Amino acid sequence: MESARDYDVIGFDADDTLWRSEDAFQMAEERFVELLGPFTPPGIDLAAALRETERSNLSTSGYGVKAFTLSMVQCAITVSSAEVPANVIGRLIDVGYDMLTEPVQLLPHVPEVLAEVGRDHRLLLLTKGDLVHQTRKITTSGLEHHFEYVEILLEKDPTAYRRVLRHVGVEPDRFLMVGNSVRSDILPVLEIGGSAVHVPYHLLWDHEHVADHGEEFSELTSLAELPNWLRRAA
Amino acid sequence: MESARDYDVIGFDADDTLWRSEDAFQMAEERFVELLGPFTPPGIDLAAALRETERSNLSTSGYGVKAFTLSMVQCAITVSSAEVPANVIGRLIDVGYDMLTEPVQLLPHVPEVLAEVGRDHRLLLLTKGDLVHQTRKITTSGLEHHFEYVEILLEKDPTAYRRVLRHVGVEPDRFLMVGNSVRSDILPVLEIGGSAVHVPYHLLWDHEHVADHGEEFSELTSLAELPNWLRRAA
Repeated sequence: MESARDYDVIGFDADDTLWRSEDAFQMAEERFVELLGPFTPPGIDLAAALRETERSNLSTSGYGVKAFTLSMVQCAITVSSAEVPANVIGRLIDVGYDMLTEPVQLLPHVPEVLAEVGRDHRLLLLTKGDLVHQTRKITTSGLEHHFEYVEILLEKDPTAYRRVLRHVGVEPDRFLMVGNSVRSDILPVLEIGGSAVHVPYHLLWDHEHVADHGEEFSELTSLAELPNWLRRAA
Repeated sequence: MESARDYDVIGFDADDTLWRSEDAFQMAEERFVELLGPFTPPGIDLAAALRETERSNLSTSGYGVKAFTLSMVQCAITVSSAEVPANVIGRLIDVGYDMLTEPVQLLPHVPEVLAEVGRDHRLLLLTKGDLVHQTRKITTSGLEHHFEYVEILLEKDPTAYRRVLRHVGVEPDRFLMVGNSVRSDILPVLEIGGSAVHVPYHLLWDHEHVADHGEEFSELTSLAELPNWLRRAA
């Protein structure tokens, strides 16, 4: 065991950092466009309409598959001027339930990286979204034993990070967060005086986009680079 | 300040203990029956069909309004053999969003009772359900300041209660839980060696019913009786 004392605690985002998530939303969106096409006037951008519905429901229904599925149904009714048949809505509901039950697909190298960095750091899993779905993913991922503490947060903002760090008893300057979202995993952690490493995923939900944030932080092309990055940081 | 040292920490359930919740589900169920009646064969028990759909989705979609709304839509399609028009499904979605945004209706005496028992006990709010909806209710209830700690649990089982009590640093024999559900608020707390007081609500969701539990615990007809009950217990 090395005595790398770069950080004491490393927090990991889950969706699109440890396992695939956005792919399923994109596939659902494609399916929505396919299914609704025959019931909408030509020229309507169905994907944009769905994203707008999601965005307008965000404060009421939050993140996650159930909120997304309700938005698909609502948008289907609106864009078709209520002409969409019930069996098409039934297909949208099936898409949602399939997303809720599909097996977790880990990203490459995840178990090895967690095992390696877990040897000399306390690890946290900090995710966002729906309580029942995230819990199912965590408990079936085979990764839960790597983490000292797991929390499903409503929002990843500075207040939430401060509360979690107080709870696990670590000062921000000994904390590193690793995740794919600059908005949720990087900026709020830098704001409270912690460190963060960005591991972009090839898909990013619109809502998580930020432009011109003006902050400096490290970016890795794969989680596999994390152990070496930590050794250099030590 | 009295030195009543009956318990150190009191946990409160929220839905149908501090504020009304089941009323809204019952009204939604009635609306479902009204809306679907014209599209289903006579003699179908629509309320029973909806409850069965809810129950079968519980392990996938969990507790809460979004899961319930998805069950309403799914059940509407099934019981109507996909004959239900999209605008009726749109009404069901509206019922769900209305439930998510309706103002919290506190039960009688709640703020006074919390203020009184909070003078010589640490108070916890332990609820179950959807993260975004429960958080909205908690933050808009005007009650949040009474509680030292708030957690939205996926399940209220002995494991969850043990974890919470460890987290707040109290032994089970110094903990009292107050709530309307024997299944969720009483039996698991007794199982881990804590105490519990049952305050029944006039409506109880089917899923929370238990029969012949064979345990002894106090029952109050109103939360207003709690301060006196505590004084007698001291």
